[in-house]
Amino acid sequence: MTIDERTLEAEKVGLDRIIFFSDAVIAIAMTLMALEIQVPETVDVVDLVPALYDVVPTLIAYAVSFLVVAIYWIEHHRMFRYIRRYDAGLIWINFLFLILIVLVPFPTDLLDRYTEETLTVVLYAVQVSLIGLVVALLWWYASRNHRLVDADLDENFIRKGVIIRVSMPLVFILSIPIAMVNPTMAIYSWVAVFPVIFGLNATI
Amino acid sequence: MTIDERTLEAEKVGLDRIIFFSDAVIAIAMTLMALEIQVPETVDVVDLVPALYDVVPTLIAYAVSFLVVAIYWIEHHRMFRYIRRYDAGLIWINFLFLILIVLVPFPTDLLDRYTEETLTVVLYAVQVSLIGLVVALLWWYASRNHRLVDADLDENFIRKGVIIRVSMPLVFILSIPIAMVNPTMAIYSWVAVFPVIFGLNATI
Amino acid sequence: MTIDERTLEAEKVGLDRIIFFSDAVIAIAMTLMALEIQVPETVDVVDLVPALYDVVPTLIAYAVSFLVVAIYWIEHHRMFRYIRRYDAGLIWINFLFLILIVLVPFPTDLLDRYTEETLTVVLYAVQVSLIGLVVALLWWYASRNHRLVDADLDENFIRKGVIIRVSMPLVFILSIPIAMVNPTMAIYSWVAVFPVIFGLNATI
Amino acid sequence: MTIDERTLEAEKVGLDRIIFFSDAVIAIAMTLMALEIQVPETVDVVDLVPALYDVVPTLIAYAVSFLVVAIYWIEHHRMFRYIRRYDAGLIWINFLFLILIVLVPFPTDLLDRYTEETLTVVLYAVQVSLIGLVVALLWWYASRNHRLVDADLDENFIRKGVIIRVSMPLVFILSIPIAMVNPTMAIYSWVAVFPVIFGLNATI
Repeated sequence: MTIDERTLEAEKVGLDRIIFFSDAVIAIAMTLMALEIQVPETVDVVDLVPALYDVVPTLIAYAVSFLVVAIYWIEHHRMFRYIRRYDAGLIWINFLFLILIVLVPFPTDLLDRYTEETLTVVLYAVQVSLIGLVVALLWWYASRNHRLVDADLDENFIRKGVIIRVSMPLVFILSIPIAMVNPTMAIYSWVAVFPVIFGLNATI
Repeated sequence: MTIDERTLEAEKVGLDRIIFFSDAVIAIAMTLMALEIQVPETVDVVDLVPALYDVVPTLIAYAVSFLVVAIYWIEHHRMFRYIRRYDAGLIWINFLFLILIVLVPFPTDLLDRYTEETLTVVLYAVQVSLIGLVVALLWWYASRNHRLVDADLDENFIRKGVIIRVSMPLVFILSIPIAMVNPTMAIYSWVAVFPVIFGLNATI
Repeated sequence: MTIDERTLEAEKVGLDRIIFFSDAVIAIAMTLMALEIQVPETVDVVDLVPALYDVVPTLIAYAVSFLVVAIYWIEHHRMFRYIRRYDAGLIWINFLFLILIVLVPFPTDLLDRYTEETLTVVLYAVQVSLIGLVVALLWWYASRNHRLVDADLDENFIRKGVIIRVSMPLVFILSIPIAMVNPTMAIYSWVAVFPVIFGLNATI
Repeated sequence: MTIDERTLEAEKVGLDRIIFFSDAVIAIAMTLMALEIQVPETVDVVDLVPALYDVVPTLIAYAVSFLVVAIYWIEHHRMFRYIRRYDAGLIWINFLFLILIVLVPFPTDLLDRYTEETLTVVLYAVQVSLIGLVVALLWWYASRNHRLVDADLDENFIRKGVIIRVSMPLVFILSIPIAMVNPTMAIYSWVAVFPVIFGLNATI
């Protein structure tokens, strides 16, 4: 191999390692969330049925957070299909993304314990919005002036990627004032995130 | 590289990442199950022997679930040898598979605590069947009309893959009515899953 | 690619996935062991120093088990450098290896709590020996009649690999009768494993 | 493939596996640290706000340790871009690095509980310095006489790598005498590590 080929190869291996490391962290965070689901301790098996009913909200809270992390993983996956190089900036934005993903179980647990409270709904919305904004930042940073993407990547594609990635956290940001009035309604408003995701799947 | 080669390369890297991510989640779920095995706390070492006997059923429950997850990992591994491309549908079916794998410790723990109860045996059978059905769905989705497999993959091989993958959860589904009458017998009936697996190893 | 090249490529990817999955399980098991090390809860900071002294044996027990798992990881790494193909047999022997690795924290914790007891020393020695025997079995299975290794791999090298891999568990098996008489001496006898390892490093 | 190409290929796969294994261990250690952050248990939601304030120092301690591990991961990543081969020495130095990374949650937790105590500040500084020294050792071992790096790698680049890698732990070592006098000031002195890191980013 020539020196140039060697540099290119090292660049690719280095990038693969960043992707791999991110996947490992996301996979662990996702799996550890399930640890919160505790098997109810009951003296008698007849008490087990109502005890299992009590676990249902925790299961739902877990499933929602699993879904949120899954959606962000897909976004991460989608972006890195176009990212060809890396620099210190990308690594640090990616770490910011990872630290926020790893902290998801915290607001999830709070939301599970105090479901219909403004405070916990706002905290959850803030956490999810922050992750979304960091994802948008990551794409903006990598694609701006084709910094870390192919030189021939369509300008329109790049711009659309930023806009769509900002839309998803927007749903959660907009739910914050709603939560001030009615926390339960804020949770329902999050459902609005799904058309955004499917729109995103269809356009980029 | 030409644009075509680059797309193909990106497709392969993207698929590898899905496989890798799944492996990480399965590996963590498998390892975390072992955390349920608690070392008995005894005042004196002479009490340790009977205390260790009490751990044996937990060890067996863990080993069975380890085996179940191992079997599904092998199925996942086997299917992805033939899958060449991916789309949003595959990613979401795969996430459904992963969330169910991650929840395996929950019914395992219940089964361990209330072994010979209809309720816990049914819950365990439902969990294992669901995973099996999602595995069958994954193969059906990927292979139907050669959606994500090679265009020249044998039609017969594809059909046989669906049939065999549906058989395994069938054993667990059939054990549900048995558990209504006799939960212990339902557990023994699960042994019928092993010939199915070895038949599967031999034919595809 | 021709069908032959495609089969070879799929074979390599499948083997890589087995290796990768094993690494993930071993890495998690290794890291989870450290969770056993609990920070002492003391009312006052002056009580912290003696409380930290109490943590030292746990730290040593953890370090020893970390070392044991590290040695087996190196063996796994070394063997898979020569393994070129896989079959169902290899996958199941590898799963047996993994389930035993995942259970290492259990006898470690027991040994830490009841250090100088015959029972816990024997349990630990049995666990470590079993892993070593499965590692030897894995090599014997893969290399016998060049089943899964290159056809031109030296017969002598294969045979030596089996002998050396059986030697390491032997040290632990031999420590079992010693533990019957004097458990502390049995622990010291484990030190004999290190020359074996370095001999192994030098010859294969 | 010729035997030479096969050896080279096996060498690369073996090295990749070491890198991968390290990444898995670091990712798990990083994620498990977040488990220390416990959701406060309060009877009433009005008590939740002060209870959350109490979690803030734990969050900061976690963020700092996340940052420390992230920095060492980047160093590991940076070094392995130049390492081309491996030997038993490299594997064992790398394991020493991993065991120290895995133990980071321990002094972090101590520092979080007894923040302004000389003892815990010194323990934390010792832990972080040790990791840094092992990282420097790893680079020195791999690059000395071009043992495991390319034969044409610049001598100056190698030397600078050692010097810079020794500087980072130096900041933490120098904070130890400061902690003897004033533990809070020692914590502030750690901020001096950031210019070192950015200097490092700029020069190698």
